[in-house]
Amino acid sequence: MKKIIFEPDDPRYFGMNEDKVVAIGGGTGLSTLLRGIKKHFKNISAIVTVTDDGASSGSIRREFDMLPPGDIRKCISALTEDEELTSKLLEYRFNKGRGLSGHTLGNVWITALTQYFGSFEKAVETTSELFKTAGVILPATLDSINIAARYEDGKKRVGESRIPRPEKKIKRVFIVGRPRAYKKAVAKIAEADLIVIGPGSLYTSIIPNLLIPGIKKAIEKNKKAFKIFVANCSTERGETEGMHVEDHIKAIYKATNSRIFDLCLANNRIVSHANDDSKLGAVHNISPESSHVLGCKIISRDIVDHKNPLLHDIEKLGGTIAKLYKSNH
Amino acid sequence: MKKIIFEPDDPRYFGMNEDKVVAIGGGTGLSTLLRGIKKHFKNISAIVTVTDDGASSGSIRREFDMLPPGDIRKCISALTEDEELTSKLLEYRFNKGRGLSGHTLGNVWITALTQYFGSFEKAVETTSELFKTAGVILPATLDSINIAARYEDGKKRVGESRIPRPEKKIKRVFIVGRPRAYKKAVAKIAEADLIVIGPGSLYTSIIPNLLIPGIKKAIEKNKKAFKIFVANCSTERGETEGMHVEDHIKAIYKATNSRIFDLCLANNRIVSHANDDSKLGAVHNISPESSHVLGCKIISRDIVDHKNPLLHDIEKLGGTIAKLYKSNH
Repeated sequence: MKKIIFEPDDPRYFGMNEDKVVAIGGGTGLSTLLRGIKKHFKNISAIVTVTDDGASSGSIRREFDMLPPGDIRKCISALTEDEELTSKLLEYRFNKGRGLSGHTLGNVWITALTQYFGSFEKAVETTSELFKTAGVILPATLDSINIAARYEDGKKRVGESRIPRPEKKIKRVFIVGRPRAYKKAVAKIAEADLIVIGPGSLYTSIIPNLLIPGIKKAIEKNKKAFKIFVANCSTERGETEGMHVEDHIKAIYKATNSRIFDLCLANNRIVSHANDDSKLGAVHNISPESSHVLGCKIISRDIVDHKNPLLHDIEKLGGTIAKLYKSNH
Repeated sequence: MKKIIFEPDDPRYFGMNEDKVVAIGGGTGLSTLLRGIKKHFKNISAIVTVTDDGASSGSIRREFDMLPPGDIRKCISALTEDEELTSKLLEYRFNKGRGLSGHTLGNVWITALTQYFGSFEKAVETTSELFKTAGVILPATLDSINIAARYEDGKKRVGESRIPRPEKKIKRVFIVGRPRAYKKAVAKIAEADLIVIGPGSLYTSIIPNLLIPGIKKAIEKNKKAFKIFVANCSTERGETEGMHVEDHIKAIYKATNSRIFDLCLANNRIVSHANDDSKLGAVHNISPESSHVLGCKIISRDIVDHKNPLLHDIEKLGGTIAKLYKSNH
């Protein structure tokens, strides 16, 4: 494997912050965040949602009666030492082969290890060790859970992949069952100096983690940690259309019945609207008058990827969080 | 990964032989040999048959239009640094899952890397690097080839997995097509100090490699190397039933039209007959009178696995080869 040497313009060249960071979220947003903060922080734990039930993860979940590997895999990929190679291999998705088409190599890998060890957490731990991740990856719960949504029209739908409906407005999401938080995740939250929630899909990645009572309680109980919520750079079709940053904060506070973070980091750079009709809606705005919502401070910075303004820029997001932490700690 | 520390009774404790070893064969026999010799030799190249067309390898071969990964995978597993873990993971075979059942994780892995890189040899090379194999693993050819058999009754069959037929006797096998030897394999043979052919299925693992003109020529051309053929401990149903060690030697000399090795290492310890009717026949004997066949010296030692007398014992086989090499070099 290629040896990684840090250049003087790389923050890692000067040594990294050794404080304990916990990042909570789902696959895509959380992996972007992890890629960014791993250049600044040495001691990272990712706490990952396990409610996916679509595509490759969904079929693995059903056929092997195990937790969905997809979100976990994305975080492992983001934190591998040799990101150039290992990450790309784990993320490789088969586009042919009767039985393999649609699966990512990483999902198949985690599935095999789960079967071999008879333990999902041992599979994730071993994969992290083998591929030398710069941090610990932990499922939020080891229980097989599903999320469900109640829409404004009173209708209900169960299953993460079935929740986003362009024609409907989500009123609230809830967990089917009574999940116990994964003990190791709770322990990491308890000792964290910095807790970052998001970015990620509001109702299908962020809130599901916070609805696990043990996770929520652990965040509340940790009084010393600096707690940031990173709002998405854009709304998501069928999930957060028309919602402003403050609506995101309100939705989380409402779902958790708690002022679960101290600060919201939002993007302030509106780049021309990207045309990805299939997945994401318009880039949303922060109302100019709202620097505080329900007692939560909103800070906005240019953290968007100018080439793909629906997503955060890895370097800018990581750097901004490191700076915010330094100046608030 | 676990750090490997050598105990004083381990041959590696005193440093290993740095001479260049080339081992030629198929999956199961070759991997047994590799596991044995890697404790004695530092510089190992495995040259592996790619004619498999059954089960997992066969379906991958057809669906992805690539070389079969199975034999290569077994050799990678045998040579991984952390054999305790990585080997078992790569050899893990899915026993459920609509699309995955029957595949080994290692086969899926090599397939993904072949698709990702667009190159089978790059996939094998990268896998070796990632899992730190104690040696180089090379396909005998990069051409997609099949082997065919002509039986004593004049009938012909194409396809490695279709050749062993309990009711028929093989007269000869041949390759369909004109395979070019893999250049890196030829180069390794050219500089080898020790060349070990076998153990392995005579007609479906050993001879197919030697029928590749470039491989055969390279072995013949290397005059300085000590060349050993390791005969199987038992006959194989539908392939070598009733054949003695000398018949194996004769079959290879006949197929290659060449005195391609100097010495045959056979097992001399007949352990009670194992009842594996499905795969292997009776343990075969060496005729007491034959210490030489067609000018090839036959040396016999106790190299059988007493618990599974159809197979070689890893430690005994490796140790015996190391001793034979020392005393003949």
